[in-house]
Amino acid sequence: MKIKVGILGATGYTGAELLRLLVSHPGVEISWLTSEKFSGKKISEVFSQLINFLDLQCVNIVKLATLDKVDLVFSCLPHGASMHFVEKLLKSGMRVIDFSGDFRINDASAYESWYNLKHRYRDFLKLAVYGLPEIHREKIRLAKLVANPGCYSTTAILGLAPLVSEGLVKDGSVVVDSKSGLSGGGRAPSLEHHFSESNESAAAYGVTGHNQKPEIEQELSNLAGSTVDVTFIPHTIPISRGILTTIYSTLEERLDTEDIFQLYREYYLRDSFIRIYDKGKFPAVKNVRFSNFCDIGIEYQGEHFISVVALDNLGKGASGQAVQNMNIMFDFPEDEGLKYPGMYP
Amino acid sequence: MKIKVGILGATGYTGAELLRLLVSHPGVEISWLTSEKFSGKKISEVFSQLINFLDLQCVNIVKLATLDKVDLVFSCLPHGASMHFVEKLLKSGMRVIDFSGDFRINDASAYESWYNLKHRYRDFLKLAVYGLPEIHREKIRLAKLVANPGCYSTTAILGLAPLVSEGLVKDGSVVVDSKSGLSGGGRAPSLEHHFSESNESAAAYGVTGHNQKPEIEQELSNLAGSTVDVTFIPHTIPISRGILTTIYSTLEERLDTEDIFQLYREYYLRDSFIRIYDKGKFPAVKNVRFSNFCDIGIEYQGEHFISVVALDNLGKGASGQAVQNMNIMFDFPEDEGLKYPGMYP
Amino acid sequence: MKIKVGILGATGYTGAELLRLLVSHPGVEISWLTSEKFSGKKISEVFSQLINFLDLQCVNIVKLATLDKVDLVFSCLPHGASMHFVEKLLKSGMRVIDFSGDFRINDASAYESWYNLKHRYRDFLKLAVYGLPEIHREKIRLAKLVANPGCYSTTAILGLAPLVSEGLVKDGSVVVDSKSGLSGGGRAPSLEHHFSESNESAAAYGVTGHNQKPEIEQELSNLAGSTVDVTFIPHTIPISRGILTTIYSTLEERLDTEDIFQLYREYYLRDSFIRIYDKGKFPAVKNVRFSNFCDIGIEYQGEHFISVVALDNLGKGASGQAVQNMNIMFDFPEDEGLKYPGMYP
Amino acid sequence: MKIKVGILGATGYTGAELLRLLVSHPGVEISWLTSEKFSGKKISEVFSQLINFLDLQCVNIVKLATLDKVDLVFSCLPHGASMHFVEKLLKSGMRVIDFSGDFRINDASAYESWYNLKHRYRDFLKLAVYGLPEIHREKIRLAKLVANPGCYSTTAILGLAPLVSEGLVKDGSVVVDSKSGLSGGGRAPSLEHHFSESNESAAAYGVTGHNQKPEIEQELSNLAGSTVDVTFIPHTIPISRGILTTIYSTLEERLDTEDIFQLYREYYLRDSFIRIYDKGKFPAVKNVRFSNFCDIGIEYQGEHFISVVALDNLGKGASGQAVQNMNIMFDFPEDEGLKYPGMYP
Repeated sequence: MKIKVGILGATGYTGAELLRLLVSHPGVEISWLTSEKFSGKKISEVFSQLINFLDLQCVNIVKLATLDKVDLVFSCLPHGASMHFVEKLLKSGMRVIDFSGDFRINDASAYESWYNLKHRYRDFLKLAVYGLPEIHREKIRLAKLVANPGCYSTTAILGLAPLVSEGLVKDGSVVVDSKSGLSGGGRAPSLEHHFSESNESAAAYGVTGHNQKPEIEQELSNLAGSTVDVTFIPHTIPISRGILTTIYSTLEERLDTEDIFQLYREYYLRDSFIRIYDKGKFPAVKNVRFSNFCDIGIEYQGEHFISVVALDNLGKGASGQAVQNMNIMFDFPEDEGLKYPGMYP
Repeated sequence: MKIKVGILGATGYTGAELLRLLVSHPGVEISWLTSEKFSGKKISEVFSQLINFLDLQCVNIVKLATLDKVDLVFSCLPHGASMHFVEKLLKSGMRVIDFSGDFRINDASAYESWYNLKHRYRDFLKLAVYGLPEIHREKIRLAKLVANPGCYSTTAILGLAPLVSEGLVKDGSVVVDSKSGLSGGGRAPSLEHHFSESNESAAAYGVTGHNQKPEIEQELSNLAGSTVDVTFIPHTIPISRGILTTIYSTLEERLDTEDIFQLYREYYLRDSFIRIYDKGKFPAVKNVRFSNFCDIGIEYQGEHFISVVALDNLGKGASGQAVQNMNIMFDFPEDEGLKYPGMYP
Repeated sequence: MKIKVGILGATGYTGAELLRLLVSHPGVEISWLTSEKFSGKKISEVFSQLINFLDLQCVNIVKLATLDKVDLVFSCLPHGASMHFVEKLLKSGMRVIDFSGDFRINDASAYESWYNLKHRYRDFLKLAVYGLPEIHREKIRLAKLVANPGCYSTTAILGLAPLVSEGLVKDGSVVVDSKSGLSGGGRAPSLEHHFSESNESAAAYGVTGHNQKPEIEQELSNLAGSTVDVTFIPHTIPISRGILTTIYSTLEERLDTEDIFQLYREYYLRDSFIRIYDKGKFPAVKNVRFSNFCDIGIEYQGEHFISVVALDNLGKGASGQAVQNMNIMFDFPEDEGLKYPGMYP
Repeated sequence: MKIKVGILGATGYTGAELLRLLVSHPGVEISWLTSEKFSGKKISEVFSQLINFLDLQCVNIVKLATLDKVDLVFSCLPHGASMHFVEKLLKSGMRVIDFSGDFRINDASAYESWYNLKHRYRDFLKLAVYGLPEIHREKIRLAKLVANPGCYSTTAILGLAPLVSEGLVKDGSVVVDSKSGLSGGGRAPSLEHHFSESNESAAAYGVTGHNQKPEIEQELSNLAGSTVDVTFIPHTIPISRGILTTIYSTLEERLDTEDIFQLYREYYLRDSFIRIYDKGKFPAVKNVRFSNFCDIGIEYQGEHFISVVALDNLGKGASGQAVQNMNIMFDFPEDEGLKYPGMYP
């Protein structure tokens, strides 16, 4: 017995990756998908890689009310746009996994200042569960609305959670330096992501602050039981997929490396998508591309504790994580449709 | 009931891709794998992406005689080295899929002149079936020894087979211009494939002739029932995976494009991994990466008939094709473990 | 005593490269430059690499009439737009080098059908000199209007000129297969040239014909003294700069390789930017990046004569060639400001 | 009147870049160059881009004693090997610019522990001047032996020098996160820098410490007049050239951004290769490729002061800086042969 799903905004990169995962998932039937730009076209005309896999026609989102009720809707719409449709879907009784930042931050005024948008559905924030299974698995199971985490946030939270949960990280000491592939910037053409501009280059952005910073701080603070501020700078590097995040922090007391390894391994004992590397080894983006793994290597350098985290920004950083959330919400094995290694080389 | 397989030379790129495919294949158990360079190491230490998937230890090939008899051995050894072990395996009753060029060419003296190697097992050439399922499916089913085709050859043969089979291509008119990703050159470090040398460059090689030329000519000539000579130049471009081949030829008579499309579609009617694009559309490497598809677009320009072919050199061009051959040999569904779209973006 | 130059459309890629070359050229003073998109901004705000080199403000082209008369104007405007301004400049007595295709093709109706544009200044076609110095150096010297050649055309013409000029190439036999970096597609954002779309891919375009085909045929036919038709397919590969063109042709008589080498070396004896490689060696894009060189390697494969040509599409394929033309027009040494090796690695 | 120079180890990447710069430098004549791997070959056979520019034959370094005395020798030999030849050259009265780390660190025992090598020429450490012109210009002028700085070190020191010199940076707070192109790893083939391994990936290395850390700390401590410890992690990203370094630190007192900008601009007032970006702008690698510029952007994020630094690892990070040092040592204008913008796009 398959569940029926719909997808809002299916023709961007998170949509493409979600479609790839869902066409191979044994428990899912895709009922409909929307696209403003490509409405009327078959999805296999938009994405040639889907020829022979899926021939659904893209529907304009203005026709949302006419579409069949489904068990679950994935919203791949951008921040600000997503919340309006999420509200409609919830009201008509459908469960939703929202890829945007609209329901990730509990504090609506923080959302408004970081996103520079008005939040019109504050009441629904209470419903929303932050969709990081390793932290909120049980709440996700019953959630009506899952706010799928940001790609950077997933690296920062998972890279520090075991230590932060023990209250071991000094507030104000955390530096999160992320290097991201360019698919993270979406599929809409821009000068910044034009091939010859970004190729053979690397750049920092969001130096004064990036909108995933508040969700990182929210989740780490909740784990710590006290305020955790982070300094976070994302960078673009010329790869299509993947994030490498290096986290620097200072600990309240200097634990043995052995003990930290044990702490990490125990913390993630039930989490099959988290791989803690052996001492002296650190993950590269190449180890996790196109997979749902989040690989972590840890070490000291002088007084700084270092955590190196790699994942695929469209995999564990977005669509893979959404499928993992779906699996939890609908009682599939948590790794259904996700249990394959990264693509190499 | 799973079949047991062994892999010779598992730590190169074709080995890595084969392992990725086999760990997700429901009908296969990997019994052993060999590596000279990494013997004694666990395969997940060699390839971090396989952590949690496969922990077999690499065995040195000198211990081949001590390894369990299996149903099928994949030899990913290089040309010249492979034949010696293939002979041993066949003699002990195992079936073999050989990735090297050692048994692709029926004419041993042609082999010797193109590969500049002595062929010591000419008798076994009669046993060998050229492992292109779209052409030799029935012979593959019963084969003891499958000679897995070259990556370039697969593009050239599949791109022209429907026309050549009808005797429609003028001999001497065929030009095959291939652009290949660098994984095609293997995993052994060399100045030529050093990152900063090949990045941001493109180069022709084998301008006077490449060792896959004779197998292209052999297969096309067999299909035509008469000699078909081709001019073939491979080029390297700075991508990890994928081949784009543009084939130029002159036809004996100018057929309508409509008729040619019908010819191609009918020829590949039972071949689920061949996708003929609609008129005016042509495949890009991005449509087939990490998949087993071979995508083809066709068109005229002036008097030249053009065929544009894309595949993944390690997928349909090597390990994917080998798994397809295995599926045929052991009565699995032909697309078992291979039925997923290309990785995008 | 410096000449004064102006630039129309200075903020695209050909403009950027032209500015780089001109700020280091001892004989040139840049008087003004236009940009619609960035008018009012300083050029060093548009291109950070020019900080400390050039601070001119971009002017909107609607103010062209108010700008100072200069000795030479480079028009980097797109096809169709360029001709209108070129006409105005010529009428006010300024000499022009036009990067667009508007004045490259003598036959206005051929232009109109290939470019799908109306040609409104047919009278000026007589004035225009095709700006390939190795072929038209003397005419360029006195030209009022130089039509700067297309990047692909430069490779195709220079790769075959010595043989074609001797009437040695069989008509109908020529296949030109070009692989180009993505800066050739310009600086305007598009889905096609969005980083994650074109990265790790390769694709053919213009399979039915590309607008540089008629200028290749015009120039080769003029050299041959008879019609030379070519089949030409350009491809995009994921590099920022550079073109590699492989040319296949059949000769009227099979000359010795030695003789062909001598023919090529003599033909280009006075041309310091053409480098004929020794037998068995072929140019890679990496050898010519950011330079004004056009490197050529030649060989037979079977009955096909092969010419492999590499240049930088923005160098000898556009802005470098334009500076070379300027040097000729104003009696500077032909290699002034251009005499440096390609950038490696 | 030209100076005569020799180059040890001319066929690696720093050698290639040095040759490119020197063949265009009006005050230099290259007398000889050595290469073990390519001895006997003409340099233009090793580096095709140098055809028509330089035809010198590579000499084996064992013949060093037979080579002409020159005004200056650049040693591009690796750490450990370089010191032996530097000693010989100094003894025969030649001035030397050494690219290796052998003479960068005053404290020989620190050198020995970081490089895991015996230092046999401790007496010469007193002669050596750390070749960062912005810090040691006057000492460089008269130096017999210039220790050319490491590429990472150049970013870290220049990015913090103005603040550190004022004693404003809290010790223990400095985090240096560098992202480097792969040419920094040299030209010798290795699995790590094999194209398909490093392409589409990113990785940290030297997580426990990298051998450029002690020179960063030495120079910053000297500027501060007290100990400055840094935590430094280099990362590889798939570009050929360039480094982007993001530096995080905490200040003793929170200065106004305005004041910090003024501090930086004044500190580098005479330094034409340092470009301080306007507030809100940060350098990308693309702005400095193939140039001698070091571009810096500065900002606060919360309590952390951020400095983003970009340079070309073979330009200002190695060979460009060496030419700048040579210019100072021999009274050429400091920017002779170096005054051109970065290569874009």
